[in-house]
Amino acid sequence: MSYDFLWHIALILLSTKVFGLVTRRFQMPQVVGALLAGLLLGPAFGLNLLPSDSEMIEQLAELGVIVIMFSAGMETDVRDLKKAGKSGFIIALLGVLLPLFGGAAVSAWLSPTDDMLQNFFIGTVLTATSVSITVETLRELGKLQSRVGNAILAAAIIDDILGIIALTMITSLSGDGESMGMVLVKILLFLLFCAVAYVVGVRALDWYIHRAKDRNLRRYPIAAFVVCLLMAFAAEEYFGVADITGAFAAGLMIGATKKAGYIASKFEPVQYLFLAPVFFASIGMSVVLPKMTTELIVFCVLLVVVAVLSKWIGCGLGAKLCGFSTRECNQIGLGMVCRGEVALIVANKGVDIGLMPQELFGPVIIMVVLTTILTPILLKMAYKGETETHLQERSFGMRREDLENLDIVTDRLLKQEKEMKHQ
Amino acid sequence: MSYDFLWHIALILLSTKVFGLVTRRFQMPQVVGALLAGLLLGPAFGLNLLPSDSEMIEQLAELGVIVIMFSAGMETDVRDLKKAGKSGFIIALLGVLLPLFGGAAVSAWLSPTDDMLQNFFIGTVLTATSVSITVETLRELGKLQSRVGNAILAAAIIDDILGIIALTMITSLSGDGESMGMVLVKILLFLLFCAVAYVVGVRALDWYIHRAKDRNLRRYPIAAFVVCLLMAFAAEEYFGVADITGAFAAGLMIGATKKAGYIASKFEPVQYLFLAPVFFASIGMSVVLPKMTTELIVFCVLLVVVAVLSKWIGCGLGAKLCGFSTRECNQIGLGMVCRGEVALIVANKGVDIGLMPQELFGPVIIMVVLTTILTPILLKMAYKGETETHLQERSFGMRREDLENLDIVTDRLLKQEKEMKHQ
Repeated sequence: MSYDFLWHIALILLSTKVFGLVTRRFQMPQVVGALLAGLLLGPAFGLNLLPSDSEMIEQLAELGVIVIMFSAGMETDVRDLKKAGKSGFIIALLGVLLPLFGGAAVSAWLSPTDDMLQNFFIGTVLTATSVSITVETLRELGKLQSRVGNAILAAAIIDDILGIIALTMITSLSGDGESMGMVLVKILLFLLFCAVAYVVGVRALDWYIHRAKDRNLRRYPIAAFVVCLLMAFAAEEYFGVADITGAFAAGLMIGATKKAGYIASKFEPVQYLFLAPVFFASIGMSVVLPKMTTELIVFCVLLVVVAVLSKWIGCGLGAKLCGFSTRECNQIGLGMVCRGEVALIVANKGVDIGLMPQELFGPVIIMVVLTTILTPILLKMAYKGETETHLQERSFGMRREDLENLDIVTDRLLKQEKEMKHQ
Repeated sequence: MSYDFLWHIALILLSTKVFGLVTRRFQMPQVVGALLAGLLLGPAFGLNLLPSDSEMIEQLAELGVIVIMFSAGMETDVRDLKKAGKSGFIIALLGVLLPLFGGAAVSAWLSPTDDMLQNFFIGTVLTATSVSITVETLRELGKLQSRVGNAILAAAIIDDILGIIALTMITSLSGDGESMGMVLVKILLFLLFCAVAYVVGVRALDWYIHRAKDRNLRRYPIAAFVVCLLMAFAAEEYFGVADITGAFAAGLMIGATKKAGYIASKFEPVQYLFLAPVFFASIGMSVVLPKMTTELIVFCVLLVVVAVLSKWIGCGLGAKLCGFSTRECNQIGLGMVCRGEVALIVANKGVDIGLMPQELFGPVIIMVVLTTILTPILLKMAYKGETETHLQERSFGMRREDLENLDIVTDRLLKQEKEMKHQ
């Protein structure tokens, strides 16, 4: 056996963390750094420090994205979706539809394909908001616990679900020449399967947990992981749905059990200490820098413009329909602009199943990085005048803390974000 | 990409845990159950539920054993070694030498090879005591905090180190025809490398931890993992030493830093939730049931007999030299009989590098399982009369708890064991 994989994993862990800390210093999420690390390690710049054909890294990356989506599912409280109510739903829906059609339009105009599915796939990549940057910015502005803050958080939860539905529809339709009817039947069966698994699973687990007198046992996270893997596998194998959809559904289910917090805490190190870095690095590694044709550059620019405008206008319009003031609509729309790991996960899935050409990966990453950088800037502008003094105070307090201890601040922010969701 | 590996990992996690819980009910460690699960999943009984040629599972298992040895290193306090003192060292040394030569004698007598290295490798497999079963039994008897208990714990720590040294010597010598002198130079260089890494690493990490105001940051476990992987890789690649030796040395180093407890707590779920089950299952899977020749059966019986007698007599003799009473020597000797994961890890390494024939894996597993079952029985007999009433009380209190909540009891025992070591 060759032991090179030990060196490869060490290199991935080290580089993603170091680059992540660097990007964090520049007020960008660590994910951006991890992507950059992957870009450097891979063939994009000719360094080729990691093999691009390692089955191990490919499968670990897949496990990584499954665990990421599983954790995202665990953090989503199904009961919150009901509470989020009409306004959250309308903001999210318009904020999904406009990027979906906007992305499809860009693709239809510029991409060489006539396949409508491929075009709509580009749209799907643009649907999911990554709200953590916005939460960080709103906290800094002292505006998280406001009408606008609540609307953004509610919409972001629903946004994720709608994005997953869009992904499920499109990947299912891309299956090997099955009829539209058959695909819909399979999706319905999958939803039925998830619903039954949810109801039965939550009760069975809670019964077992109760029987074991509510103690924290190692078997719970293990059982949760088994459920996650089996649902991911079943989704792909029996329903023609993406494995990450199955993992997300499993996460929703585990998240509704009594030991959700304990289980999630055990998945956290598995994720950040091992699997997630491999996934993000592998995303970066899978970027090939193609001959930068004018077409590709135009595509890239248009993609970024459409990504920003479609969310801004879509969510803003939704907010307007729900009776928010124009100023607030502006703030809500801009707060939803940021894209993150979900866009990368979806794009990666698209390349895997042949719905997205490999060379479009670069533009997608550029889109994610630029929306991440632009969101806090635009959002601060949208609040200009409103919180002038407050802003200065807070941002100074924040910056010092940030520099001292970046991880803990994030952890706290994410916890507070989650608490916000539960209000 | 095929998604079968999701199903394979789910199967491994589920079966090792279920079998582990079953063996725990029968007062055996969960490792035994995990091995049985692997036996069933693999080719041994013709079920072949898992592919025997998966690169992914092979490499994950290797990562698993690296993380297990790394954690073992983190739990070993280098300062304890000094405190354990002369008596612990003498007990451990004789308890390593007798099994080493005893195992070599059995192999020389029955195995078809004339290679002395292969013979001594069988001896090396027999060297390392697994003390957790003994600790559990002594607690049950109310005898853990006694002169005998302390001697056993001290000897077990040194035992591990001596076993690692034996493994390092023998695997290095098996390298591709290098001269004995070159091998020794490489081992010395490796020890020097470890010593320098230890001194520099502990200081650098503690400096960084102090600089970050002693908070718990995610980067510490990540850095620890990187160090572990790099030292495991360097050991194999540059010094011709086993990767698990490098991982163990890295564990010693991380265990001496200020954040050892925090780092270890993050590796725990990575280990039990993912990597360790894959390793133990893969051990079980790698067992081929060869044509059960008379020779192999005799080998198996002799191996078990020598495993029990050599530790019993070796450690007992060592204790006698240190002035323990004959009754106490008996108790110490029997307390050290139990073998566990380290024997499996060493044997596995031997098969990998061609120092142990594949068909001897079955006997080694039988040896581990039988010594695990025999140790508590023999130990209780050795204490007969001494603690009659105490025993009944304790064992009842223990048994009820055990049935209610097996994992937590183990955790507590291991923690207490560790505390014991620190006394």
